[in-house]
Amino acid sequence: MTSARSRSDAPQVVILGGGFAGLYAAKALRAAPVCVTVVDRRNHHLFQPMLYQVATAALNPADIASPIRSVLRNQKNTDVLLAEAESVDTGARRVRLSDGTTLAYDYLLVGTGARHSYFGRDEWEALAPGLKSLEDALQIRRRVLLAFERAERETDPVRRHAYLTFIIVGGGPTGVEMAGAVAEIRRYALRRDFRHIDPGEATVMLLEGGPRLLTSYPPSLSDEAKKDLRRLGVEVRTETLVTDIRPGCVSAGGWTIPTQTVIWAAGNSASPLLRSLDAPLDRSGRALVEPDCTIPGHPEVFVLGDAAAYEHQEGGTLPGICPVAIQMGQYAAATIEGDLAGRARRAFRYWDRGQLAVVGRGQAVADIWKLHFSGLLAWLIWIFVHIFFLIGFRNRLLVMIQWAWSYLTYGRGARLITEDLHPPAAAFPEPAPPRASLPSAGVAAGAP
Amino acid sequence: MTSARSRSDAPQVVILGGGFAGLYAAKALRAAPVCVTVVDRRNHHLFQPMLYQVATAALNPADIASPIRSVLRNQKNTDVLLAEAESVDTGARRVRLSDGTTLAYDYLLVGTGARHSYFGRDEWEALAPGLKSLEDALQIRRRVLLAFERAERETDPVRRHAYLTFIIVGGGPTGVEMAGAVAEIRRYALRRDFRHIDPGEATVMLLEGGPRLLTSYPPSLSDEAKKDLRRLGVEVRTETLVTDIRPGCVSAGGWTIPTQTVIWAAGNSASPLLRSLDAPLDRSGRALVEPDCTIPGHPEVFVLGDAAAYEHQEGGTLPGICPVAIQMGQYAAATIEGDLAGRARRAFRYWDRGQLAVVGRGQAVADIWKLHFSGLLAWLIWIFVHIFFLIGFRNRLLVMIQWAWSYLTYGRGARLITEDLHPPAAAFPEPAPPRASLPSAGVAAGAP
Repeated sequence: MTSARSRSDAPQVVILGGGFAGLYAAKALRAAPVCVTVVDRRNHHLFQPMLYQVATAALNPADIASPIRSVLRNQKNTDVLLAEAESVDTGARRVRLSDGTTLAYDYLLVGTGARHSYFGRDEWEALAPGLKSLEDALQIRRRVLLAFERAERETDPVRRHAYLTFIIVGGGPTGVEMAGAVAEIRRYALRRDFRHIDPGEATVMLLEGGPRLLTSYPPSLSDEAKKDLRRLGVEVRTETLVTDIRPGCVSAGGWTIPTQTVIWAAGNSASPLLRSLDAPLDRSGRALVEPDCTIPGHPEVFVLGDAAAYEHQEGGTLPGICPVAIQMGQYAAATIEGDLAGRARRAFRYWDRGQLAVVGRGQAVADIWKLHFSGLLAWLIWIFVHIFFLIGFRNRLLVMIQWAWSYLTYGRGARLITEDLHPPAAAFPEPAPPRASLPSAGVAAGAP
Repeated sequence: MTSARSRSDAPQVVILGGGFAGLYAAKALRAAPVCVTVVDRRNHHLFQPMLYQVATAALNPADIASPIRSVLRNQKNTDVLLAEAESVDTGARRVRLSDGTTLAYDYLLVGTGARHSYFGRDEWEALAPGLKSLEDALQIRRRVLLAFERAERETDPVRRHAYLTFIIVGGGPTGVEMAGAVAEIRRYALRRDFRHIDPGEATVMLLEGGPRLLTSYPPSLSDEAKKDLRRLGVEVRTETLVTDIRPGCVSAGGWTIPTQTVIWAAGNSASPLLRSLDAPLDRSGRALVEPDCTIPGHPEVFVLGDAAAYEHQEGGTLPGICPVAIQMGQYAAATIEGDLAGRARRAFRYWDRGQLAVVGRGQAVADIWKLHFSGLLAWLIWIFVHIFFLIGFRNRLLVMIQWAWSYLTYGRGARLITEDLHPPAAAFPEPAPPRASLPSAGVAAGAP
């Protein structure tokens, strides 16, 4: 059956993806004379910047996610569809959904985001999950907590060491935040819980292929983040490319490191849906967009957020971060309203208010309006900004209480292992006896 | 490898199951001159009486669950093992774990609880999940929320009606609580979220084979609960036995009701581990225990909580509810301490402080010290008792805030559909076109 929903004669705006770009576009269109349909394969908008806190058991899934329907419930011109978009026919102006139905549009906003990219080594995905969805976060949480449980029961010291080795691949904000959070869990939250191991002795290693962490930040802040991580006991290895990931070990920088837990934060590629747009894509699969965020020849098709490769005023493309997505979404909505009112289009301009990344408890780095600073002040700004942008009053209150609790007690409230106790055998068999190449001091010596 | 953990010479107490019986036994042994090992295949203790609130999106999983390790972290004589017990060799006094290792014991406390029982129709389980674990609760939440999403997209009125029909099988406390909660969600929380359906029109049906709801309560309260549920719009059918559950429909009381969502709250059977005890079992697989909660011939093996069939002072067996499990756990701990101090054993006596069941917002029934009452007072007592027994200060605070929020706004904070959007095809294929036997008025007429 093709779409036969009765809709008014107003222009149809279809928004693919209820992330930051899509949701802010929909909200900005609330008073526009259009019919909006938001399509997402999840029923919730996810506050992705705090996803690592779910992965590290500080927050509950529901704290950082709101049903898209609820967020938009008072917008009479907006319909929410729980469905997966499969392809776009830009000629016929239709979106094909995975259940075979189609949706007609006058304007299309594509904010379908990105997934992890393993640089062609897709077999690494099962061994080194990335962090994009709530499911990813719960899976990482499960793996991290289970590794400690297994170490507690393991009597062989080599295997136990492998269980207590956590490797984070990629030194961007997600990698830095994950490394800091795992280091804190092992040192504080789990400290008194085990009888046969000392979680504080767990190795947390952050591997980055490039010369420094947080490459989108000024070098002074990269250094600061590295220092902070080392203070938390994280072994930071820059210029260390991962060459292989196999069950039970990671090869990087010429060394083989026995480990049972690898977290991937190294690469993104845009959603495969973009390929159906018939627009030029960059190497990561993002659409190369015009100055008004549309694809060449189709002023009615906007590509937004980290699905878009937008040439920055100062060279390079805009980073795949929330403020860009929010501003693009709002810009697209304003452009549609301008079109309908007969105004000429203006180019999108990103208003860069800066960047923030958390390293640990009371520690963050900030690059705001050309001011570079770190430490407690940066951390407090991070908390403030994130609570402010978190959608829903209830979420804000609950997150604040949980943060306050964690801060005062060093505890982690959401330390639940749900779902399967035993991750797929293909992913985590017993480690092969890798006594030959035990890491620790050896790896440290091999790093720059 | 068989167990080779170095342990002291103190008597070994092995507790299987970190539920109410096991956890309260472990806590009561904190000063005893014994070594305690708590074995559970989950890492968390679950506050089961509030599980239906997770299933109906009022609470987060972490609100009603605490890591067993954390609860017991300050008990130096206690070890927590994340492992699955497979069988018990009562002759050799050893527990066999699923990883092939064994644990020796001097005292064994079995508090392994119960699972759902489908009266020999195990194929119903995939179609009608029960509510015992967090995974169960999240699965039921997902199915209920997805049913509304699918109804929103369904244009065929018969299929749409099937999506909007929710059937709860079993009129005990869990069934009553689930029916009330689903009825409230559809009437309040989801009211303004959809454009093409009115969730308030969804049918919620509670089927009970016996003559009345809440059979363990006095008849006046059963009537009260029925009235309250009907006020919420629940169709209550007593003396209606479910004879078949197939994809897309349920057969009960001679009628076939098209539905996509069935929740099972009708029967329990004790954990299969009990079969290895070589003790007499009752029909539900519970061990028939002696007056001191041990199995015949083995005064060192206690069976506790709903794994035990304990003859009540007033006839019948004790019900499978938390207070019984808690008191049995504390009794077993005291009995072990008494043994070690050379005191003679006394029989267990259950101190019945009463029962409480919630029907809906501001509505509960209470049977406390022979006083029978219902309504707001019973509900407030329920809230107070449940907050009081909830383990962990943080949980209490968060649950109170969420309840207050839900109460004031009628909202449900945790309306997330995580995991697979598409439940297994075997469980939920598209409904067969069951136009022939549409329910509603017809079913109502057929009921007593």
